[in-house]
Amino acid sequence: MNNAPATNTAPVTKNAPAANTAPVTDDAPVTVTVIGLGLMGQALATAFLKAGHPTTVWNRTPAKAEDLAARGAAVAPTVGEAVLASSLIVVCLSDSAAVHDTVGPHRAELAGRTLVNLTSGTSDEARETAAWATDFAYLDGAIMAIPEVISRPEAFLLFSGAPEAFERHEETLKTLGNAVFFGEDPGLASLYDVALLGVMWGTLNAFLHGAALLGAAKVDASAFAPFANQWLSSVTGFVSAYAEQIDRGAYPAEDAALETHLATMKYLVRESAAAGIDTDWPARIQALAERAIEAGHTGAGYAGLIEVFRGQA
Amino acid sequence: MNNAPATNTAPVTKNAPAANTAPVTDDAPVTVTVIGLGLMGQALATAFLKAGHPTTVWNRTPAKAEDLAARGAAVAPTVGEAVLASSLIVVCLSDSAAVHDTVGPHRAELAGRTLVNLTSGTSDEARETAAWATDFAYLDGAIMAIPEVISRPEAFLLFSGAPEAFERHEETLKTLGNAVFFGEDPGLASLYDVALLGVMWGTLNAFLHGAALLGAAKVDASAFAPFANQWLSSVTGFVSAYAEQIDRGAYPAEDAALETHLATMKYLVRESAAAGIDTDWPARIQALAERAIEAGHTGAGYAGLIEVFRGQA
Ligand SMILES: NC(=O)c1ccc[n+]([C@@H]2O[C@H](COP(=O)([O-])OP(=O)(O)OC[C@H]3O[C@@H](n4cnc5c(N)ncnc54)[C@H](OP(=O)(O)O)[C@@H]3O)[C@@H](O)[C@H]2O)c1
Ligand SMILES: NC(=O)c1ccc[n+]([C@@H]2O[C@H](COP(=O)([O-])OP(=O)(O)OC[C@H]3O[C@@H](n4cnc5c(N)ncnc54)[C@H](OP(=O)(O)O)[C@@H]3O)[C@@H](O)[C@H]2O)c1
Repeated sequence: MNNAPATNTAPVTKNAPAANTAPVTDDAPVTVTVIGLGLMGQALATAFLKAGHPTTVWNRTPAKAEDLAARGAAVAPTVGEAVLASSLIVVCLSDSAAVHDTVGPHRAELAGRTLVNLTSGTSDEARETAAWATDFAYLDGAIMAIPEVISRPEAFLLFSGAPEAFERHEETLKTLGNAVFFGEDPGLASLYDVALLGVMWGTLNAFLHGAALLGAAKVDASAFAPFANQWLSSVTGFVSAYAEQIDRGAYPAEDAALETHLATMKYLVRESAAAGIDTDWPARIQALAERAIEAGHTGAGYAGLIEVFRGQA
Repeated sequence: MNNAPATNTAPVTKNAPAANTAPVTDDAPVTVTVIGLGLMGQALATAFLKAGHPTTVWNRTPAKAEDLAARGAAVAPTVGEAVLASSLIVVCLSDSAAVHDTVGPHRAELAGRTLVNLTSGTSDEARETAAWATDFAYLDGAIMAIPEVISRPEAFLLFSGAPEAFERHEETLKTLGNAVFFGEDPGLASLYDVALLGVMWGTLNAFLHGAALLGAAKVDASAFAPFANQWLSSVTGFVSAYAEQIDRGAYPAEDAALETHLATMKYLVRESAAAGIDTDWPARIQALAERAIEAGHTGAGYAGLIEVFRGQA
């Protein structure tokens, strides 16, 4: 009879949640187990503890649980006991092989519970784990945040897999940040994850390359960063506009032609050579634009490059 | 006696600038010439006209001036006459060679005026043009905006060169967007320009690659874009943090180790191969991280990669 509407009684307030605690209705807060206490697992367990969830932890190297124990976490001596302690089991390890090794032997203990896998992996691995999870609900997840940001509003987490598991635990998962559900294909969270991480790597590499270039001219990286960040907020506008063009399948050069970009790409290569820094990164960017132009996208705008990435140019 | 404080009189209001017009003191608005009416030059001339500056234009292909003429621009029949028409001459052509060909023969007419070169080029080209500009003030500039954004608050323009010229024309140049001055070395605006454009290309390439990957799983680019943009706002936080590490010369893995990134980079390569799209781009990102790790940055965070770009790893 959880969440049954009160009839003919004054509004129930005695269980109103205090700030910074797990939402309490007539239920006790959801019990949570965190398996894996690396940089990320520590942050996850800390967030659940702070929100008032009874939290059990396990880590291969037990020393990493000490600090959490001092802050109120129960430390399980074995993975099996860690699983049995809670209804929601969150696993965050280095990779899928570690997940296999660690929770693989504990299918029986998992029965009837929910396993949320926040370990990075491929979409195929997510689908395999989901297929293996027959007696319990499985959600595959990805964390778009660094540990420090966990539970802050800018953190967001991607989920796909069992819809009823997401619904049941959405409130608890939101302890970690904004939670987005992509549907039943368990592979989708992983796919979005690597696509988004790719955006991060592309941006960071370009920033680091630019910082190296300006550094050669004695400009501090901290002087460059605010301009890079301001400029990135303009770039988000280009991203939205190009996304629309991609979905339409037409890439008119409304702002700048690929040839205009290509000309300035050559300057970046020349400046890099003159500064004695890496020229491979900008040369690669130039080569991609050249391929798009050769493939007949002369006069097109930047979004035309997607055909090169699709392997169609 | 410009801007002399009024003594013992009622506040002077008759010259208060009307919205959307050039700042008017006791002076007439600055006269401006725009040479080059491509996608960007059109936007520049339009902004000056709208702000109430008497605007003269010239373009090699005269037809591109017609629309501006209808909106009040004076069309000069020759470059020499275009230069003589104004005190501020803005040139925005395809490249430095075009600037040479076009304004090169008009040094005499430029004497006593200010030439602002908003054509993209290298820092060496900017220094050469500045050295050639002996009888007039020279500002080298770069536009961090697409034409559509010109004169909107998110536009920003970078300048370096003659400080007194920037001071004299700062108000007028702000008609185009936020104006930043980097000092006397005329090459700095160009250097920041290519470094910032590099950030844009790195980000856009990664977005287009991710859109191709998700597109293969039937996810629209417009569904991906809002997540990419939200994630980019987190990435700006990493940029600031890494800039600080770079200036300190230490790259501790406070958030995620390079090895953690490397593991997920391999997933992006695998997902790309599985989806049948380009694997070169993610493989290149992976190779850079591997080089940083091989060079002894094991345990370092992402900022350690700057040493690869500096050519020191
Ligand atoms: N850090 C971030 O910013 C971030 C952001 C988003 C996603 N992620 C993802 O989160 C996951 C964890 O990242 P992290 O930064 O926390 O990594 P980490 O600091 O390297 O921690 C790795 C964890 O995995 C455990 N582990 C590895 N192999 C194991 C095995 N065979 N059996 C049992 N335990 C094993 C480690 O245990 P020991 O302590 O015993 O070594 C440790 O708890 C990764 O998939 C990563 O991609 C991280
Ligand atoms: N578009 C953008 O989003 C953007 C953003 C930032 C910076 N920029 C920079 O702004 C500059 C102009 O870009 P754009 O987009 O306006 O390019 P565009 O549309 O291709 O226009 C090029 C202009 O240069 C003129 N031109 C080229 N060669 C010439 C020559 N030898 N003599 C005389 N005129 C010549 C063209 O005249 P015709 O009309 O006669 O061909 C045209 O007016 C470039 O340096 C670009 O990198 C552009």
